[in-house]
Amino acid sequence: MPRRTIAILGGTGRQGRGIARRLAAAGFPIVVGSRDPARAAATVREWGADSIGVASYGDAIAGSDVVILALPFDAVVETLDAERGRFGAAFVIDVTVPVAFTSGNATLVHIPEGSAAELVRSHTPPSVGVAAAFKTVPAHALDEVERPLECDEFVCGDSPDARSVATELVEAVRGLRAIDVGPLPRARSIEHLTLLAIGINRRHKIHDARFRVVGL
Amino acid sequence: MPRRTIAILGGTGRQGRGIARRLAAAGFPIVVGSRDPARAAATVREWGADSIGVASYGDAIAGSDVVILALPFDAVVETLDAERGRFGAAFVIDVTVPVAFTSGNATLVHIPEGSAAELVRSHTPPSVGVAAAFKTVPAHALDEVERPLECDEFVCGDSPDARSVATELVEAVRGLRAIDVGPLPRARSIEHLTLLAIGINRRHKIHDARFRVVGL
Repeated sequence: MPRRTIAILGGTGRQGRGIARRLAAAGFPIVVGSRDPARAAATVREWGADSIGVASYGDAIAGSDVVILALPFDAVVETLDAERGRFGAAFVIDVTVPVAFTSGNATLVHIPEGSAAELVRSHTPPSVGVAAAFKTVPAHALDEVERPLECDEFVCGDSPDARSVATELVEAVRGLRAIDVGPLPRARSIEHLTLLAIGINRRHKIHDARFRVVGL
Repeated sequence: MPRRTIAILGGTGRQGRGIARRLAAAGFPIVVGSRDPARAAATVREWGADSIGVASYGDAIAGSDVVILALPFDAVVETLDAERGRFGAAFVIDVTVPVAFTSGNATLVHIPEGSAAELVRSHTPPSVGVAAAFKTVPAHALDEVERPLECDEFVCGDSPDARSVATELVEAVRGLRAIDVGPLPRARSIEHLTLLAIGINRRHKIHDARFRVVGL
């Protein structure tokens, strides 16, 4: 069975680059969606991963089965609204982390919809399923693509299909176990987990606090 | 060095009973604070733990070094306000879980102060340090007092001393590692972790999902 084609918007960015290369290594055709495809293509060439293509946001969305949103949180709404007409993809996976640093303290951005994932839901065509995943694994740990992660990653979504697709992608990454935590509003708890990891990193002078569920 | 005396308000309740017996087993003098001391005394006798005393809320608070709040969340403010004058204790540890079940779905109670722990802070005399702990370990796992828990428990507080006292109590429980996550407002993230555990339990038909930090 051919594997799903995955568009990763912001796929050369801090969060996206590890996900892109790890999913490519797992055999998924990847298209990095970029505001500046020429520059993104140069970055991707450096990776030496032949199965990773590059396209504009709109073309990446139109040509894929799953769209991973790895944009900076601030750019999400604008991008989704601008590319709304391009969605043929059946699923969007929100991996953004709505964290703000005010006078050195990390806090979650207040989001009237409840969470970044629900904000994404409200700016995505209704026919497209939305899930959240890859929010807690540290970006730079993902970026060390040979490194087994040995932790859990939390998935929620607005339908069993959306959660199942997100679970499939998480478990394609070596050393990651996907934990399905239920409906989309659970994303806020996942985002809090990321905030907690940031706090643990700072306080304990480490860099890659992450989580494992015990008892499952 | 004599160990601190610990008052546990609600110490025969769902959350308190495991904490009371485990800390007693670790050598701490424990006073269960109860609205109905006679009934609480009968429960404590059944436990066969001679080092556990029973008193009214006010007497338990007045006679202890640390007060653990293991009351139902709804009773916290009323109790703290009523007993405000009795505080000699230097520290309060909030272990409440502000979860509501609406049409079968668990959600966190909205708290204008930010978290249950910050609500407790605002109803506790300023001279008393406030920490949060024991919010994520499942009550019934704590209640099986011989069972090693093999997980982490998250601690935050409004001063290094408050966090240090909470850490000491958490680590007195066999198989628990305390993770200091910083200032008191982090309690909201810890409360979200509890909500996540409840969601994982339901979805995966298990009973004692809990967490371990990887990378620390």
